[in-house]
Amino acid sequence: VIRETVPPIAENPAPKKTLGILGGMGPAATADFLAKLTAQTPAKFDQEHIRSVVCCFSDIPDRTDAILARGPSPVPAMLRSLALLEQCGVANIAIPCNTAHYWFEAMQRNTIVPIIHIVDAVREALIDQGALGRPVGLLATTATIRAGVYANRLASHGIDCLCPLDDDQAMVMDAIRQIKAGANNRKLESGLHVVMQRLRRRGAGSIVLGCTELPLVYPKDAPGVLDSTAALARECIRQHIRES
Amino acid sequence: VIRETVPPIAENPAPKKTLGILGGMGPAATADFLAKLTAQTPAKFDQEHIRSVVCCFSDIPDRTDAILARGPSPVPAMLRSLALLEQCGVANIAIPCNTAHYWFEAMQRNTIVPIIHIVDAVREALIDQGALGRPVGLLATTATIRAGVYANRLASHGIDCLCPLDDDQAMVMDAIRQIKAGANNRKLESGLHVVMQRLRRRGAGSIVLGCTELPLVYPKDAPGVLDSTAALARECIRQHIRES
Repeated sequence: VIRETVPPIAENPAPKKTLGILGGMGPAATADFLAKLTAQTPAKFDQEHIRSVVCCFSDIPDRTDAILARGPSPVPAMLRSLALLEQCGVANIAIPCNTAHYWFEAMQRNTIVPIIHIVDAVREALIDQGALGRPVGLLATTATIRAGVYANRLASHGIDCLCPLDDDQAMVMDAIRQIKAGANNRKLESGLHVVMQRLRRRGAGSIVLGCTELPLVYPKDAPGVLDSTAALARECIRQHIRES
Repeated sequence: VIRETVPPIAENPAPKKTLGILGGMGPAATADFLAKLTAQTPAKFDQEHIRSVVCCFSDIPDRTDAILARGPSPVPAMLRSLALLEQCGVANIAIPCNTAHYWFEAMQRNTIVPIIHIVDAVREALIDQGALGRPVGLLATTATIRAGVYANRLASHGIDCLCPLDDDQAMVMDAIRQIKAGANNRKLESGLHVVMQRLRRRGAGSIVLGCTELPLVYPKDAPGVLDSTAALARECIRQHIRES
């Protein structure tokens, strides 16, 4: 539906690779991912940044409800987003939502575009930080934990996960819901801090913020805390620099 | 290119209206817009947020260079972004870049999708704040100022613009370039503050941050300072609430 003055594609014969972002889960986490992607890219002006298309369909059904409470599946909506990104000609896809990775294989089967797995990005960051040798503490949705999104994928690399005990996990889940509702306060941050301290006392080395809502309230660059959103952004940048 | 398990569209017969975002100018400002869109939307969970598609093609040629220095035109690349957004089925389009609005009429002629003009959004915000009756001070790119993006559109509503004198304008332009290169420090903020104070001494009432890079370093909710990114987000939310 291009009209009038649109020049022939040939005028821009080799556009740079475009990153597809399957976002909306939730939308604030998507914005945070895009901000971190930009902040971490070595660029002196706009044109050196990574091209991206963001599909921010916030009405994708809740992932946790689907896994734990037989809520409607988010898969059809996620596949529609993937199809749209594919039609936009993206070279690879990032999904800044950890819980959505429960359906990673189903999504990857349905698109020819490679999807960058967020847990692989976290694993690379853990390796770079020399954070192996001790179990990692995992703050994530109850669905991410029960579905083994991290445990299964890290175990094959010899990394053990340590998760909060039930009461603490309920507190983490409550914090995630509050952040999705727009909350951002000291009480949330200090509540999460207490949960992390207990994980450390049980033997955790690094703590992984394995839900992309959590970095929205937890301070950047807190020592020993690994932000899965930032790790995913870094892996996207690494792949784009390697391939361009 | 939809495969396997994608259900028929009928399963999701009435998706919510989708906002198209012509972004990438620059990419950090696009992320800031998406964050403000989300933060300002009254929503208790993901699914209450606005659906959006963001076309973040950061390699669109520099707008200021095109207007002031005969650099390559950004119009072909912007029209390709618009065509892509149109193909994605968006209901309206926001462009979180003030300078790009120099080509507003050319863009609107080339898409059937209504584009929300950022200066109209700023004007609405000025009216809501009761900030009329005195000229507004404008911090923007030299291109935005020389092209009259604000002056022309506000004059027809009886609002005068006051712009920094040459040395101060050079400082603003230098700040914008530094922010695009990733800078964010106190010196930038205090330099901008000095320019604002001089505009106020010359009679400016409200100060408009009329370049979407500036709110990246200037504190949110500074009194008497109107953020064009936040104003555009608010207008998008208003239109989506009205139409849904």
